Amino acid sequence: MEESVEDVTVHRNMSVNDLIEAYRKIHGFVASEIAKATDILKEMINKADTRFLTFTGNLIATGLRGIIAQLIRNRIFNVVITTCGAIDHDIARAFGGKYQKGYFYANDEELKERNIHRLGNIFIPLESYGPLIERTTYRMMDEILTSTSKNEWSVYSLLMEFGKRIKDENSILKAAFDANVPIFVPGIVDGAFGTALFTYSQLKKFKLDLLSDMKKLSDIVFGAKRLGALIIGGGISKHHAIWWAQFKEGLDYVIYITTAVEWDGSLSGAHPREAITWGKVKPKAKRAIIYGDASVILPIIASQIL
Amino acid sequence: MEESVEDVTVHRNMSVNDLIEAYRKIHGFVASEIAKATDILKEMINKADTRFLTFTGNLIATGLRGIIAQLIRNRIFNVVITTCGAIDHDIARAFGGKYQKGYFYANDEELKERNIHRLGNIFIPLESYGPLIERTTYRMMDEILTSTSKNEWSVYSLLMEFGKRIKDENSILKAAFDANVPIFVPGIVDGAFGTALFTYSQLKKFKLDLLSDMKKLSDIVFGAKRLGALIIGGGISKHHAIWWAQFKEGLDYVIYITTAVEWDGSLSGAHPREAITWGKVKPKAKRAIIYGDASVILPIIASQIL
Amino acid sequence: MEESVEDVTVHRNMSVNDLIEAYRKIHGFVASEIAKATDILKEMINKADTRFLTFTGNLIATGLRGIIAQLIRNRIFNVVITTCGAIDHDIARAFGGKYQKGYFYANDEELKERNIHRLGNIFIPLESYGPLIERTTYRMMDEILTSTSKNEWSVYSLLMEFGKRIKDENSILKAAFDANVPIFVPGIVDGAFGTALFTYSQLKKFKLDLLSDMKKLSDIVFGAKRLGALIIGGGISKHHAIWWAQFKEGLDYVIYITTAVEWDGSLSGAHPREAITWGKVKPKAKRAIIYGDASVILPIIASQIL
Amino acid sequence: MEESVEDVTVHRNMSVNDLIEAYRKIHGFVASEIAKATDILKEMINKADTRFLTFTGNLIATGLRGIIAQLIRNRIFNVVITTCGAIDHDIARAFGGKYQKGYFYANDEELKERNIHRLGNIFIPLESYGPLIERTTYRMMDEILTSTSKNEWSVYSLLMEFGKRIKDENSILKAAFDANVPIFVPGIVDGAFGTALFTYSQLKKFKLDLLSDMKKLSDIVFGAKRLGALIIGGGISKHHAIWWAQFKEGLDYVIYITTAVEWDGSLSGAHPREAITWGKVKPKAKRAIIYGDASVILPIIASQIL
Repeated sequence: MEESVEDVTVHRNMSVNDLIEAYRKIHGFVASEIAKATDILKEMINKADTRFLTFTGNLIATGLRGIIAQLIRNRIFNVVITTCGAIDHDIARAFGGKYQKGYFYANDEELKERNIHRLGNIFIPLESYGPLIERTTYRMMDEILTSTSKNEWSVYSLLMEFGKRIKDENSILKAAFDANVPIFVPGIVDGAFGTALFTYSQLKKFKLDLLSDMKKLSDIVFGAKRLGALIIGGGISKHHAIWWAQFKEGLDYVIYITTAVEWDGSLSGAHPREAITWGKVKPKAKRAIIYGDASVILPIIASQIL
Repeated sequence: MEESVEDVTVHRNMSVNDLIEAYRKIHGFVASEIAKATDILKEMINKADTRFLTFTGNLIATGLRGIIAQLIRNRIFNVVITTCGAIDHDIARAFGGKYQKGYFYANDEELKERNIHRLGNIFIPLESYGPLIERTTYRMMDEILTSTSKNEWSVYSLLMEFGKRIKDENSILKAAFDANVPIFVPGIVDGAFGTALFTYSQLKKFKLDLLSDMKKLSDIVFGAKRLGALIIGGGISKHHAIWWAQFKEGLDYVIYITTAVEWDGSLSGAHPREAITWGKVKPKAKRAIIYGDASVILPIIASQIL
Repeated sequence: MEESVEDVTVHRNMSVNDLIEAYRKIHGFVASEIAKATDILKEMINKADTRFLTFTGNLIATGLRGIIAQLIRNRIFNVVITTCGAIDHDIARAFGGKYQKGYFYANDEELKERNIHRLGNIFIPLESYGPLIERTTYRMMDEILTSTSKNEWSVYSLLMEFGKRIKDENSILKAAFDANVPIFVPGIVDGAFGTALFTYSQLKKFKLDLLSDMKKLSDIVFGAKRLGALIIGGGISKHHAIWWAQFKEGLDYVIYITTAVEWDGSLSGAHPREAITWGKVKPKAKRAIIYGDASVILPIIASQIL
Repeated sequence: MEESVEDVTVHRNMSVNDLIEAYRKIHGFVASEIAKATDILKEMINKADTRFLTFTGNLIATGLRGIIAQLIRNRIFNVVITTCGAIDHDIARAFGGKYQKGYFYANDEELKERNIHRLGNIFIPLESYGPLIERTTYRMMDEILTSTSKNEWSVYSLLMEFGKRIKDENSILKAAFDANVPIFVPGIVDGAFGTALFTYSQLKKFKLDLLSDMKKLSDIVFGAKRLGALIIGGGISKHHAIWWAQFKEGLDYVIYITTAVEWDGSLSGAHPREAITWGKVKPKAKRAIIYGDASVILPIIASQIL
């Protein structure tokens, strides 16, 4: 009855699909969760009508941005929840920001003098970030307010307008517009884009209406039949997805990709099984938790669910 | 010139102050950072006029809530940034919510059936959380709107009104009101309190004005002479404090208490030295990073800076 | 001059080689280290005559055992350092031990009653472990002592004799015998095999001569031209490889795959750059550190260096 | 019936005993484990006749060395299992080695040029380590072999002879000699002391007899009535203690202090509950697991159990 761990071998021309089948046989310890998660996501795509993708902002500073755009464009996921930082990096990169390959153990005081921000092992020249995002946001906002004559905006609909005006196929905002997938940013005020909206609102007639975002999310969740989620990282994006899922008796499918520890009691490190007690994940939900960096894990999984 | 590691001994009646002096001598590996952080915070209290405290919501579900209230009440910190979850737990506990000692490896499906939420190793009966927070928020909001005739609120000023109406000395909202310390919650929509405000706004004439919070934070930061911060945990609270600090050339004093890893490139795991490259921490700032659970670290440090 | 992060896309039929090229472009955060490590290992295979592979015992309880055997059989690595646990699992599985797919959150008291050991998410029936290893070791020892008339043994040469007598192609002991790759186990007394040797030595005339192992390792290191190492996990296996490398001015190529934190000052979490100060890694060594579970990382890398 | 989480306050003159009582009330998340562990250890001291202390070598490079010596000297623990590195640092420091306060983010290539080893945030001049340990070991060995006329030694009895010849009260070897507590080092060949013994054995008539160490451990375990253990860190020291405990149906009391993750299936990260399935910890054992750096945790706990 019990299935045995199986020794595997590998070869140079193996495919990622072969890799996942090897993971399944290897079983221990994270490998088997990747195989399991891939199965769950495949079923989720077929059976859940409402599929959340959540992630932290740092990922959009990496080449994962293209994969995330791909997942959105193909409506593998049809609701996105993320941070203001993700929007910042997406706008910066869509409008020519240079994100360069760097390293973790840089001399940070020297980088500061050279006006280069460090995000993990990525170097971002100052002029590719804050000023570029502010300038772009202002210009876009002028266009949007002029063309729509609307002065109060929910975040998700404002981001749709931004996506409409972006040419970069790897942009998550463009992909979301193209595929009509709403992007929610519950912590919108926390970053360059949010700050630009704030300073813009001091200059022009403009207001954010976050309660409309909640209304939209509420409509999505209450209108859903079955809910699934791929939750990459922790923080507000993770919590917001499972928070809303509770109003529909919880997620039916859920995958966490995380590096956070469980023992500090943080939401970021909490397992899907904790979420069951809050009604955020159904007791019978199909679920997996994958420990590791999303930059490694997501390409493997994404390739098999597209 | 170089100082040597010194072997220490301990005794049953030693004080926490003795403990910190022992940490200083022990030196390796996290111990020395605690001694250093305590020194930095003491200097910060004397020299920085604007002192941020940021923390994640889970801590308010524990007995650390009393210590955090104490730090606020004594204006050791005079600006607070936290999550909606922190407000949720503070309100729930101020109004009779029962937070019970539990354990991590519970049978979560059974807890679900018994209507008990699990937050790490804390058990929270359902009726002590969602319904209690919603009911209390509605009642408070009615009172506040009636007594003030004001329908549009920044979050920090609304929380002041809540604090004014709380009797519990261990409440962070009450302590913040008593000490006139603003509490900012950039992700206010993400939790029970935010959801209650949303549903309330569907019933009554009420609006949140988050841009006023930004205005207030902006005034605080631009009016500051020297900035300090004790940053407990990651996520939006951490980022928001250092984000705003950049507009005043960065923090002069900064302590991180964290369990997050640096290698995944997340903001939560990023070191103070990364923040230097963003102008969020001054190159000459006094800084320390303490790895460990805040439930262990904070009581030690807090006792010496009060 | 600086290279930019590049957005990537993935597709269902991509190869593992494509995956690594995607990692290179994604850059942040662990992804780029995998691409870099693969390059370093390829160069190491060409340029270093002495190539260490070290790993912890738990991996041999998984299907990685086949891959590790493959790496040894092909002399990708020509010196192995591991733990007694690795030998235990290799013998158990070579002689019919049933290692079954289980899960982490089992009821451990119930498993205990059913005489099933749990190793992470792998279930091992008691009769597949201790008794099987003891019985097999005794029988083998009788054979070996009889056929060789030698009563004092270095560990590496005794393990060669075991490998000679194993039929299982996925056995690391058999692969090491077939490829004439010595396996060193500096902590040989710590496990089932070591304990069986000890009890055997109480019954029969037999002695272990660990100093001969050191002599052999010493000959290998002093006879080496260039040293490389793939170090999976921490503990004694990791330390032993870098410890010996210092006597030849350090490793020229080194890759760590780890989940351990640096901040606790442990050897397991120490970076290659710390090893430079000890002369264990050359200042100019090519080096990478990959954070993550070896069950995920090793199949990817191994497939490209075979 | 259920106990509630209690809000606490702290004050400048509080004692470490007050701190632990605060931890008990705070409850979440690691705090409560410290209070629990202290209770368990107090009971263990009264009820278990055989009490293991295991730790990794890096701790002996810090000022914790004094506390560990104190715990041994007072026979709070009466069996020690550790690594060769611990012996290295103990000998180096007992004979004038200078261990200096350093920092993690040093320029390691520069340290290398200055002949300074880095161990986490501790700097150790080369002349305070390898050469000093070798010279001291040779001199001691000459004395010991001459005075005893014994040429084959178990590790624990050889270490007793070393302890007898050390004057430093903070030395764990001296404390172990003074209190007649055996120190076992299953991986004795892995470090400076072990290497010095090996080179010494090439020059003089001398042999290590590790099987005698096993015999002694076996006698201790089979002669024990109740077993307890404080296990600091992972690796071979941890495994060796629980490995031997299985032969007496497992530990009755066990505390782990660790930073290792459970999800990679390593022995270092495995919880006490996994050890139950192996018979290494009794199902009814009193047990706790404390996540954090021992440099912070041990002084707190040690002060209350002395």
